[in-house]
Amino acid sequence: MKRIVLLGTGNVATHLFEAYKNSNNFEIIQVYNHASKSLQIFKDKVDITTDLDKIFPADIYILALKDDILAEVSLRMKESNALVLHTSGAVPLKVLSKFKHTGVFYPLQTFSKNKNVDLSKVPICIETNSPKDYHLVQELASDISEKVFKISSEQRKSLHVAAVFVSNFVNFLYTEGESICKENQVPFEILHPLILETATKVVNISPKDAQTGPAKRKDQEVISSHLELLTVEQQEIYSLLTLSIQNLHGKEL
Amino acid sequence: MKRIVLLGTGNVATHLFEAYKNSNNFEIIQVYNHASKSLQIFKDKVDITTDLDKIFPADIYILALKDDILAEVSLRMKESNALVLHTSGAVPLKVLSKFKHTGVFYPLQTFSKNKNVDLSKVPICIETNSPKDYHLVQELASDISEKVFKISSEQRKSLHVAAVFVSNFVNFLYTEGESICKENQVPFEILHPLILETATKVVNISPKDAQTGPAKRKDQEVISSHLELLTVEQQEIYSLLTLSIQNLHGKEL
Repeated sequence: MKRIVLLGTGNVATHLFEAYKNSNNFEIIQVYNHASKSLQIFKDKVDITTDLDKIFPADIYILALKDDILAEVSLRMKESNALVLHTSGAVPLKVLSKFKHTGVFYPLQTFSKNKNVDLSKVPICIETNSPKDYHLVQELASDISEKVFKISSEQRKSLHVAAVFVSNFVNFLYTEGESICKENQVPFEILHPLILETATKVVNISPKDAQTGPAKRKDQEVISSHLELLTVEQQEIYSLLTLSIQNLHGKEL
Repeated sequence: MKRIVLLGTGNVATHLFEAYKNSNNFEIIQVYNHASKSLQIFKDKVDITTDLDKIFPADIYILALKDDILAEVSLRMKESNALVLHTSGAVPLKVLSKFKHTGVFYPLQTFSKNKNVDLSKVPICIETNSPKDYHLVQELASDISEKVFKISSEQRKSLHVAAVFVSNFVNFLYTEGESICKENQVPFEILHPLILETATKVVNISPKDAQTGPAKRKDQEVISSHLELLTVEQQEIYSLLTLSIQNLHGKEL
């Protein structure tokens, strides 16, 4: 049984804690956070601490912390020969270079505290500074997920940008859709099946081939009538995305 | 048994034809299209014609045609006391004003010919010029779908714009995500679970509350490092959507 100390109490940390509860190979023996308040949900389940000097000896330290405090926390940690991992999509592996054995353990999913996620279906992107440590990180990831990918820091950075497009920005377009519905007294739920079908489609078809709509058809009449209904900010987004779709698909004609 | 003549052979027409095949209340007795080639898939199943003067007397004519030929085809049709419907999200009801009994029957979904869609879960937005005809259109829609909404031409127009945001534009962002992955030799499938979870989430949570990411966190360091990885066109989209997210969520702080 490998012993893990988990640093952090956010969405990723919480989901990882739940996932390893039933593991036969890995055990989370302690959770660290600088603020004691957010540790309260863990206190009956595991040892907790707010003091970096008091974290237990362990085989693996998982830093599931916000990007901007990763460097600072790792510098304040004691020297260790254990494997030290972070879970960030955006931070390079070298932020942990104080340690000898380091790696990245990046679960590529959007986590909310009040919504369960089946981690076994979540891709985990892993990387280690030394090939020797790769096997342990792979075991760690395979223990909770069926989908483990070897991804370099460079590739992870590009994945993270791509994730912003297909998740953060997509969610913002959903928000615009909801706001247009509200302004016109139309229930947003009418759009739910369309949203789900649009997402499901690209699991089987390349999104480039799945493109439909007035922009692709270059249906200027519909485009103009749509613009009339929008706020100035929405018009700007509508025009830019319409132009980009036409640039992409115009080339094919 | 009410008799239907279906005009059109595109994605919507094809899906409607399949849906009414098993109906006990409505029967499609003929399919019209100006080009005989696209009628071939129907010829062993139902009467077909390329001649508007030869369309059968019927209770209901469904014009599942492209937006830009709706006006012309309806003008070329013979006078009729039957109910005449179109299936467009963008065209107002009045395009059919030559007829006495008219309505709209707009299934709000993205249809592809090579992918089955369960119409029973697809919202159908209906409208009639006379309240007297509403009941028949409601029966027609309820015959194939569990989700029937009374939607005015005005509301339908706004729904159609909202649909462009949450489907056409969203699909384009998927395309950008795929292209970023390809350029960096990362399999796009790593993003599939994220795409599905992002879509599924907003069925239960308002997208405004589901927003995450560097734009909302105002994480300027990550934003700058992302911009470095993008093409000029992608940078423009990234910057505009980041700014819009910050405008929306900045107001809350």
